[in-house]
Amino acid sequence: MAKVAHDRGHDVVLWGTWLDDPMLDPVERGEEHPRLRLRLPGLRLARAGDLARALEGAELVVCGVNSDGIVEVLRRAAPSLPDVPIVSVTKGLLEGSAKRAERIDLVVGETLGRDPRFVHAAGPAKAMEVARGVLTWMCFAGRDAESAKAALGGGHLLVSTTDDIAGAELCSALKNAYATGLGMWDGFVGAEAHNARAACFAQAIAEMRALVVAAGGRADTVHGPAGVGDLHVTAAAGRNRAFGERIGRGEPAVEVARDMGAKGQLTEGYAAIASAHRFARERGVADLPLLGAIHAVVWAGADVGATLRDLRFG
Amino acid sequence: MAKVAHDRGHDVVLWGTWLDDPMLDPVERGEEHPRLRLRLPGLRLARAGDLARALEGAELVVCGVNSDGIVEVLRRAAPSLPDVPIVSVTKGLLEGSAKRAERIDLVVGETLGRDPRFVHAAGPAKAMEVARGVLTWMCFAGRDAESAKAALGGGHLLVSTTDDIAGAELCSALKNAYATGLGMWDGFVGAEAHNARAACFAQAIAEMRALVVAAGGRADTVHGPAGVGDLHVTAAAGRNRAFGERIGRGEPAVEVARDMGAKGQLTEGYAAIASAHRFARERGVADLPLLGAIHAVVWAGADVGATLRDLRFG
Repeated sequence: MAKVAHDRGHDVVLWGTWLDDPMLDPVERGEEHPRLRLRLPGLRLARAGDLARALEGAELVVCGVNSDGIVEVLRRAAPSLPDVPIVSVTKGLLEGSAKRAERIDLVVGETLGRDPRFVHAAGPAKAMEVARGVLTWMCFAGRDAESAKAALGGGHLLVSTTDDIAGAELCSALKNAYATGLGMWDGFVGAEAHNARAACFAQAIAEMRALVVAAGGRADTVHGPAGVGDLHVTAAAGRNRAFGERIGRGEPAVEVARDMGAKGQLTEGYAAIASAHRFARERGVADLPLLGAIHAVVWAGADVGATLRDLRFG
Repeated sequence: MAKVAHDRGHDVVLWGTWLDDPMLDPVERGEEHPRLRLRLPGLRLARAGDLARALEGAELVVCGVNSDGIVEVLRRAAPSLPDVPIVSVTKGLLEGSAKRAERIDLVVGETLGRDPRFVHAAGPAKAMEVARGVLTWMCFAGRDAESAKAALGGGHLLVSTTDDIAGAELCSALKNAYATGLGMWDGFVGAEAHNARAACFAQAIAEMRALVVAAGGRADTVHGPAGVGDLHVTAAAGRNRAFGERIGRGEPAVEVARDMGAKGQLTEGYAAIASAHRFARERGVADLPLLGAIHAVVWAGADVGATLRDLRFG
């Protein structure tokens, strides 16, 4: 997103947390960013200790910290944070003060003690492809979505806007869980079961819709890039899918998690399944057979064959 | 569907048109059905000339004739057709008496001179997998949908019902066109463009929704197995996708159509693109950039690169 903002003509400061020096060091030397494998000329770089200076005079903040770190980073940023929109690409659910799974914008708001002017950026948007100019359709959600779109949209980055931040955040949090589940299902039913694969995709959309509506979001958000689009890309390939597929083919979930964890490959889907299931239970959303089955297998040691064989959709 | 009905305990007559003797001959000898590669014991077989006898006493008719043949077959059947539900798996649009592209159930009704009690069977349901017991989720649409579900649903065949026959038929007709378009798009953008692929899938759903609503159908039909589910399976693999991909990678559409036609591989998607585009034009549905681009390339000789490079979603 820093590259997009720079390409749009903005003066960009790329700040890294205390974990990001290995990313910034090569960029500072004019070499490629190790993850993006792109040079990023023209960005001003700022290190962890320079947070206040990095935020000085900012007209827009883009926050790409993951869900484990976002509250701590914004707590540290708070004294220097100008009252500007924060475009957040962070995906997940966090525990709020009411001790239940909650949207990130609400938990951040509790931490800052004020409305953080969050714009949640949802939709199928792998960072490397966004940086490399691949056509990407995102959904910006929040009351400042239009101004964020004006700043960042255009060219290869198509942006739709909505005020439905609840729906957009839930879609982003849920799609990792359901993509893992689709991988598990596909691993179980095998390649020559196109009907069953498609049925499960439709079921995932139906369950995401039920959860979004329970969170105060709107169905139409699920049916656009934030839901249908992002689930499509996340389920098609990648680590969430691989994690699920191995379990679906019969490897015990704890062993797959341990193995992928040891290789640094453990996916967002693993934790996302637990938080999605918790969210459903806390909000009293019943009739989610797919999520129930995914959770039973991944987190409760249920037998994958017995669990998925009895799964029924619709 | 004959196998499903037999497995549910019904007394089934499998009738074949004047083109289907090569399918029925081996079945009659107790050998495998050449397409399904399954034995079909217990079915009573009837040949083209025995249509009246095949229909005698029928409590339910399942019609699997393709869209080119369905009107002629039902015209011949009409004198013997009992007033029972007709479960139709035929997908497409036909020209009605008003000389515009129309739903099949309406054109059949014009031909029969009465309401044909159609139940359109939509959803991701490859016939071979249905016959082989792969879990399948279909959407039965029409006022007799519940009785059709009672007769055929159960076991591996999950059936949802709706009275939205307009939405279900349009989804079935449109998904071949859009699946071909998604193949074309994916061929154009290449494998390392997941964002662009997912964006196009979301756009296809949005355009199918606009067309369904214009036909008097409902958005929720698009968001279930009939739309999202069937587009998913049709776009993931198969001949529609292959046809589109070759065009997307730069082969002229007329040559791909000629080549696949010569091999007997030309897909439903080819004609479906023309009829979908005609339907949109006749109903005055504008703002369908994806369908417009697909049609321009496949039917109007537009350059695939120039056309898709300028395509924008949302």
